[in-house]
Amino acid sequence: MSDLSFLVGTWRGEGKGSYPTIEAFEYTEEVVFTEVPGKPFLSYQQRTKGTDGNALHTECGYLRSPSPGVVELMVAQPTGLTEVHSGILSEQRIDLMSVDVGSTPTAIPVYSVARRLRVEDDVLRYQLDMEAVGQDMDVHLEAELHRAS
Amino acid sequence: MSDLSFLVGTWRGEGKGSYPTIEAFEYTEEVVFTEVPGKPFLSYQQRTKGTDGNALHTECGYLRSPSPGVVELMVAQPTGLTEVHSGILSEQRIDLMSVDVGSTPTAIPVYSVARRLRVEDDVLRYQLDMEAVGQDMDVHLEAELHRAS
Repeated sequence: MSDLSFLVGTWRGEGKGSYPTIEAFEYTEEVVFTEVPGKPFLSYQQRTKGTDGNALHTECGYLRSPSPGVVELMVAQPTGLTEVHSGILSEQRIDLMSVDVGSTPTAIPVYSVARRLRVEDDVLRYQLDMEAVGQDMDVHLEAELHRAS
Repeated sequence: MSDLSFLVGTWRGEGKGSYPTIEAFEYTEEVVFTEVPGKPFLSYQQRTKGTDGNALHTECGYLRSPSPGVVELMVAQPTGLTEVHSGILSEQRIDLMSVDVGSTPTAIPVYSVARRLRVEDDVLRYQLDMEAVGQDMDVHLEAELHRAS
């Protein structure tokens, strides 16, 4: 667990979204990683708002390191999707690639997702690329968050 | 959303777990369904404890009804699994069957999951069956929870 402890806390900041099929947009974001006493994982909760203050996306899940240098992420989204990722941890950088994207019959199709995040000096930066709706893998989200607690 | 509003609140109670490959066990449980203002889904958070008071399972996710009588559930679990379900809603009964179970390379294999829940007179009862670790579909969890708020 200590491998992931650099993430524990509340992070807030701004991000921008884009994709070949949509208009670019900006958002504010809060991400919370929480330790669960006695358990070998962090819980993960994320919320974004548009520049008008209205809720945009939210997702929840868990992050764990089953062995040194290895990280797994399990995420559920209200858009009808789940993601399971496997990846690597090196210093305070995590590089994840989806091994499964689950979707309900009514969800917008997402085929694979790459998530990269790194923490430096109480700044968390992440990038999310996805292969979705008939498009090749491309950047979808980039954000810079600052430690709030 | 109003279709699912009968679930909104905090539910607490007891359950029992079993499966052909494990010893039967008992647990206490808290389930919280929360409305997200302006959004067409409920967020879902669950925690169980063993009879010794130690944390057992937890999971989080979202429940939505994309059209009348239809329900979708997206769940993430710290055990390395995600579930996406599609099912039906009739009065205050929900019958869900997994359309995808995602798992990390290190997770215990689960092939499919059926979740049924019903609410009657402020009592929420659910049953979870699963097909896992080389076994046929069988009952894994049954619980009876009472509305706490």
